[in-house]
Amino acid sequence: MTGERIRPIRRGAAGEVEIIDQTLLPHRFVLRRLETLEDAAEAIEAMRVRGAPLIGATAAYGMALAAAEEAGDAGLAAARTRLARARPTAINLLWALDEMAAHLAPLSVGERAAAAFARADAIAEEDVAICAAIGEHGLAIFRDILAAKPAGARLNVLTHCNAGRLATVDWGTATAPIYKAYEAGLPIHVWVDETRPRNQGASLTAWELAERGVPHTVVPDNTGGHLMQHGMVDVVIVGTDRTTADGDVCNKIGTYLKALAAHDNGVPFYVALPSPTIDFRVADGVAEIPIEQRAAEEVSHMTGMTGDGRVETVRIVPEGARVANYGFDVTPARLVTGLVTERGVIAADRAALVAAFPEAARAAGRIG
Amino acid sequence: MTGERIRPIRRGAAGEVEIIDQTLLPHRFVLRRLETLEDAAEAIEAMRVRGAPLIGATAAYGMALAAAEEAGDAGLAAARTRLARARPTAINLLWALDEMAAHLAPLSVGERAAAAFARADAIAEEDVAICAAIGEHGLAIFRDILAAKPAGARLNVLTHCNAGRLATVDWGTATAPIYKAYEAGLPIHVWVDETRPRNQGASLTAWELAERGVPHTVVPDNTGGHLMQHGMVDVVIVGTDRTTADGDVCNKIGTYLKALAAHDNGVPFYVALPSPTIDFRVADGVAEIPIEQRAAEEVSHMTGMTGDGRVETVRIVPEGARVANYGFDVTPARLVTGLVTERGVIAADRAALVAAFPEAARAAGRIG
Repeated sequence: MTGERIRPIRRGAAGEVEIIDQTLLPHRFVLRRLETLEDAAEAIEAMRVRGAPLIGATAAYGMALAAAEEAGDAGLAAARTRLARARPTAINLLWALDEMAAHLAPLSVGERAAAAFARADAIAEEDVAICAAIGEHGLAIFRDILAAKPAGARLNVLTHCNAGRLATVDWGTATAPIYKAYEAGLPIHVWVDETRPRNQGASLTAWELAERGVPHTVVPDNTGGHLMQHGMVDVVIVGTDRTTADGDVCNKIGTYLKALAAHDNGVPFYVALPSPTIDFRVADGVAEIPIEQRAAEEVSHMTGMTGDGRVETVRIVPEGARVANYGFDVTPARLVTGLVTERGVIAADRAALVAAFPEAARAAGRIG
Repeated sequence: MTGERIRPIRRGAAGEVEIIDQTLLPHRFVLRRLETLEDAAEAIEAMRVRGAPLIGATAAYGMALAAAEEAGDAGLAAARTRLARARPTAINLLWALDEMAAHLAPLSVGERAAAAFARADAIAEEDVAICAAIGEHGLAIFRDILAAKPAGARLNVLTHCNAGRLATVDWGTATAPIYKAYEAGLPIHVWVDETRPRNQGASLTAWELAERGVPHTVVPDNTGGHLMQHGMVDVVIVGTDRTTADGDVCNKIGTYLKALAAHDNGVPFYVALPSPTIDFRVADGVAEIPIEQRAAEEVSHMTGMTGDGRVETVRIVPEGARVANYGFDVTPARLVTGLVTERGVIAADRAALVAAFPEAARAAGRIG
């Protein structure tokens, strides 16, 4: 898939950093240039780029843009602070900032800007490689599930939010096995959760699956339980913004409800994750992870296209209604069938995570 | 509450039948006159009236309007067929039609129109009395839950869809205990599920709670699990379109997901139901109840009010995207803490249902 389509973050011909402005999808496809640290921070904050891996890559380029402006230690520290508060829940935003800081610190001020862009490019390419590996490991799961079905049956996958190519540099995390399966000729069909309040499923996942030609159906978030009760879902696969050392999964609000339904109906529930989303410093996700509250307007208002082609925003609650907008929830490890990582499929528990990623666990001070 | 506000179905000064057109709420309050059988059937089909009890009352008036047009046996049989197919899932639509038919059959053709209106009025008043009784029984539950909380704490109730006064003739089913608690001075707060795809929570429940002054917060359907994980919900109460003899509950799509979350977090999950929603002919809800599929546009499009006060409909999925729209799901009895009926709170099982409503069970041929 690499190279066929425009990546959601990329370097242009003159080295400029460009993003797809995802707030305008699926109605408008607009590329936007990031010229400053503040452009990068605003793009993350306003969710022009979203998805843990893509946020990480954008933050890396944000540090590079900052280094091009002011590469001294104080400037870089300020840039790191600015970017870190753009999306507090995203663990690999912090990972990317740590990585960039560690890479640039030993260098002279004069070397830093070029080195920062090179390291950001490398982080982006590492993300592509990680997602492709997740795709191969997930594909093996899909093949096994399909093999257990009657000949000719299609594989029905349900996903929540957008852990797609638009959430990464390429391939996606939860969608990587879907794209790999589609390329391998498996008869796959995807149930796409709308994913209120920001509708990343209806607007982004549906858009990118259509771009690729993968058969899919958009459903309200309320629908998954019914589908699972009636044998219409073979496997659930979602992404994650943060995975704890004990295997709890913090992902888009509503993920937990789908995990409960999968568990209640014997449907396997997988979480696709690049290892930078693992946070070995956190154990109990429900108790320890602060959940970002976002703007009320994301719930009270909805943007779409009118019959005559205008993009319009409408209020869908009574005037003055109070709303709450929690961005994420935590799915306890006990509901997770397996974690699909770049190093293979592992159990959602501490022993498996430490065994698979000992260097990350060690860096977090969790093992000797 | 009776008499203070305009009922969603009522007889006008000259005996005419009027409804609140709920498809225009919360943005416009419009009364609409039903003059013919077809008006009544269309109002049910287009969901200008919705909610099991209100559909039943509207169907009863539909039979009366039909009798005023053509009161012969053939005419009434045709009217019954027309109304029955307006909303196939609503069991007390069928109950009201049976009731009206049984009432009119022994009468002469000349007597039928007046008798039909009188019986429809009585069905409406019976609904008000049933809902008020549900309210009192539910209030007792709420008092007990609040008594177990620290002094001064508020009672947080979560509800899904609109089982409110707008779904009945007055009081509502799930909202009856809420209004009773509010009138009794209990410190109550309601989490209102948006309830995609038709947004009956965001548009109707929020509207009627605001009309009444009950504190409430609208949340996306994805949010309830997170709230329950964090102790922010003390009790869930919902309505039902059909309850089976074994206590399975067929209600608005997404109810099952909230019941799973309540069960997983030890939050009591109650279902408020007037006895006409009990279907003693059905045992296993998941296996036996056909789930209505509704128009794709309910998922793909959203209606609301623009900043300059126009009601506008916008498309929120990519052009040409395939969507699915299942109207209901079934919550298995094992997830239901209790059924709040007009005769008290009972267990969600066959023995309790038959003991509480022996005449209905007998009529369905389920007990001697």
